Amino acid sequence: MIRNAAGREVPQVVNGQARTPYAGPDGVQPVGRKHSAPIRSCSAYPSNGDKRAPTLLEAIARSGLQSGGTVSTHHHFRNGDFVAEQVFAAAAELGLRNLVWLPSAVFPCHESLIPYIESGVIAGIEGSLNGPLGDFASQGRLPRTAVLRSHGCRCRALQDGDLEVDLAVIGAPTCDPFGNMTGARGPSACGVLGFAMADAQHASHVIALTDNLEPFPCAPWQIPGNDVDQVVVTDRIGDPAQIVSGTTLVTSSPERLRIAENTAQFALATGILRDGWSFQAGAGGVSLAFTVIARELMWERNIRARFIRGGSNSHLVSMLEEGQADYLLDGQTFDLEGVRSAGANPRHIMTSPFTSYNYHTKGNFASMVDLAVLGATEVDLNFNANVVTHSDGRLMHGIGGWQDALFSQCTVLAVPTLRSRTPIIRRELTTFCGPGELVDAVVTDRGIAINPRREDLIASATDSGIELTSLESLMAGAERLSEGPPKPADQTGDMVGLVTWVDGSALDIICQTN
Amino acid sequence: MIRNAAGREVPQVVNGQARTPYAGPDGVQPVGRKHSAPIRSCSAYPSNGDKRAPTLLEAIARSGLQSGGTVSTHHHFRNGDFVAEQVFAAAAELGLRNLVWLPSAVFPCHESLIPYIESGVIAGIEGSLNGPLGDFASQGRLPRTAVLRSHGCRCRALQDGDLEVDLAVIGAPTCDPFGNMTGARGPSACGVLGFAMADAQHASHVIALTDNLEPFPCAPWQIPGNDVDQVVVTDRIGDPAQIVSGTTLVTSSPERLRIAENTAQFALATGILRDGWSFQAGAGGVSLAFTVIARELMWERNIRARFIRGGSNSHLVSMLEEGQADYLLDGQTFDLEGVRSAGANPRHIMTSPFTSYNYHTKGNFASMVDLAVLGATEVDLNFNANVVTHSDGRLMHGIGGWQDALFSQCTVLAVPTLRSRTPIIRRELTTFCGPGELVDAVVTDRGIAINPRREDLIASATDSGIELTSLESLMAGAERLSEGPPKPADQTGDMVGLVTWVDGSALDIICQTN
Repeated sequence: MIRNAAGREVPQVVNGQARTPYAGPDGVQPVGRKHSAPIRSCSAYPSNGDKRAPTLLEAIARSGLQSGGTVSTHHHFRNGDFVAEQVFAAAAELGLRNLVWLPSAVFPCHESLIPYIESGVIAGIEGSLNGPLGDFASQGRLPRTAVLRSHGCRCRALQDGDLEVDLAVIGAPTCDPFGNMTGARGPSACGVLGFAMADAQHASHVIALTDNLEPFPCAPWQIPGNDVDQVVVTDRIGDPAQIVSGTTLVTSSPERLRIAENTAQFALATGILRDGWSFQAGAGGVSLAFTVIARELMWERNIRARFIRGGSNSHLVSMLEEGQADYLLDGQTFDLEGVRSAGANPRHIMTSPFTSYNYHTKGNFASMVDLAVLGATEVDLNFNANVVTHSDGRLMHGIGGWQDALFSQCTVLAVPTLRSRTPIIRRELTTFCGPGELVDAVVTDRGIAINPRREDLIASATDSGIELTSLESLMAGAERLSEGPPKPADQTGDMVGLVTWVDGSALDIICQTN
Repeated sequence: MIRNAAGREVPQVVNGQARTPYAGPDGVQPVGRKHSAPIRSCSAYPSNGDKRAPTLLEAIARSGLQSGGTVSTHHHFRNGDFVAEQVFAAAAELGLRNLVWLPSAVFPCHESLIPYIESGVIAGIEGSLNGPLGDFASQGRLPRTAVLRSHGCRCRALQDGDLEVDLAVIGAPTCDPFGNMTGARGPSACGVLGFAMADAQHASHVIALTDNLEPFPCAPWQIPGNDVDQVVVTDRIGDPAQIVSGTTLVTSSPERLRIAENTAQFALATGILRDGWSFQAGAGGVSLAFTVIARELMWERNIRARFIRGGSNSHLVSMLEEGQADYLLDGQTFDLEGVRSAGANPRHIMTSPFTSYNYHTKGNFASMVDLAVLGATEVDLNFNANVVTHSDGRLMHGIGGWQDALFSQCTVLAVPTLRSRTPIIRRELTTFCGPGELVDAVVTDRGIAINPRREDLIASATDSGIELTSLESLMAGAERLSEGPPKPADQTGDMVGLVTWVDGSALDIICQTN
């Protein structure tokens, strides 16, 4: 174990692989060249472009996947994913064992994979763990240490080669026999397919699994068939009702609405919410409420956004269609309106973690966003924050794009002061997920604390008459309303998870809970 | 020198680099992983996404380009390119010498670069040489041996690493300060920008040069700014009148119209021209005439193409817009109608040499095309053909996508029996550019010779009543009309050029002429 720049003790080797300790927000300067897939030749593929294999089982057998290998899937089907289970059922039937699963994220539906872990087909997971599988990992029931990466970090790891994919199985809502695919249409349409692009480019073998085959060319394709080895047609790759929500609902909690209102007033007071601005807000209750309030302020003031970063939803689509934003740069599609717009509106641009989040590119979109409104499970007095564990130490949330989005021009953590009577602002984080250097303000139901590093924001907010407070004061207030400072989680258990920073360095560990 | 599978003597080392001899149409089986660019970090780029450098000179100085380095440009501005000359003028001013220029193709306008060769700024060219620079190379006036690659081979060479680009300067008709760029609009609009994609991905340093800057995001982008190091705004990157033709003209020569008519009748007789078919034909006179005739046949018979491969032009755009084709898969845009359509029609799909031509992918589009109609300067009795030199041995034409397109399901060389009284079909090629195994028929003004390997085509053509002939008979007829067999070119001069096959192997050499 070594103490890193965040002051956390981290291992130098995890799962047999050397890890660099976290060295600060800007990361470790990379060396060398990008990792890349093996060179293939057209002579090994059918000249008529028909790469269909009869079944997924047959295709996996042909892929050469061995026990101990790595298998990736994407999460654009969210809680309606039928792909991962089909993959591991086939792998089990083929007698494969000790596989490492590299999902871009997991959802509650993936609880169905626990039997494959228990039977030894899956030995480890590297991905954005949460829900039942997060809980399962927390209990020390995964043979290998879980490695948690942000969306951008996963893309970077594939690019840089610290994550090698032996087999990528890409759920393709519409696909042709050559493997050109799109998420924009088909019975399992999911809109954007950007999270699978890095896998297609870097995996040694790529299978497209589809329930909607059309003749070549499936165009416009989001992933070209030139990266695909085999195409398999199956009955169902997803449950449309679970892939996207029918509608996305704004919070009705008065406390959360107050946080959203405070965030919008902060953006207005600091001059961030101005003509030509840009923002990113998720699909959670507070974020969505912020979007709705910001939208009203924009109407009133005749303000137009140059771009909005999605996760797209009906609210963002309306802003695009009503001319309140020039462009919607979408990373994943959250509801039916998002899917419709992604397939039809040329100003609804499908992005990928490569363009938006990968820290090892020549700049990415995240740092160009004027305002990112994010959540957190815990914030310490230096604006450092946790997003993966609860205060009892349980791993319950994925990192998602949270670490990546911290690089925006202004990052706001919009959080309640208390959750279930537990203060959110505290002296010590259970898990360190993001450095306070990148957090510009913490906006709560009881006031706004601006990072002292941002004197410019403090000056403009003060001039505007917004009432500012400090993290210390917010913490003290919350502690008065609860039973004092929250009890630290028991961190004496074995390491079950590693939290990496965007550059792949070791940021913190997650310990077993029972 | 070693004798390769085409029976040609080729060197094993050219310009200090080892060369594998040509081993047959399917090529040498590749090993290893793809080449890739150095890993960069966002921390080294402005967080606001503004990568503008004040001048191209300053940007090249910052790029770290050294004497002896390699510099690439793309050819989408065709004969209206203002980029290459600006690059080498700046390089000369910086005192750089012995650079190797890697254009995706050259045009007559690039004659203006000859002074930079003569002054030692440029030492060699690897690209699709033709016109004045081809002639210049033929005369042995380039210090290094010219390496001729097809469009697909160039993309593959960048991918596989046998061609390393130190600096790519990409002319960007519309660009934002981050480097997102598109060719679809702007005063120098060229439509597709696909030939520059491999350079953006693989070069060590990438500069976008634009005469039309717009605010982030330039969307939809064809090349993402994440691959771009610097952006330079300049007055003019191209001459619109020379980038694309106003209109594309069909040949009026009765002999060439006969070749086109014979090609169309061949396609009909063999059942290739059927509902759901696909074809590729260039923008040359015969190819264009073939397109026009095929289109009439399709109207008469209510036949629709699934896709057409462009070089787009007004005829192909009309077919797309009038529903005669479902998709136009475009590699480069030849006229104003092509540019308009590429930017507006979602069924006009912009492709790149990676998807269409690169032989080291998991299949590419070329082999899925039902019929490719191509030209040739010479054809021998085994259907082997030449496309780069004239019968006097002078290097006058680039390979373009010719070798790559040979892989179609049926490749027709549509050629006159005589050019300037010189027979085109002959016993021995001046330069071997493509193997007869991939040529299915030679269609001339005086008859059609089907490759004996294609018994299926011979059977269906014979049944249809089309009159077939042989290459021997076509040759004999042409020799009767001229002064007998053409005089072999003098091939005793020094090697000035190397013709590679799609896999990068050494196919033939070009000797100095005076």
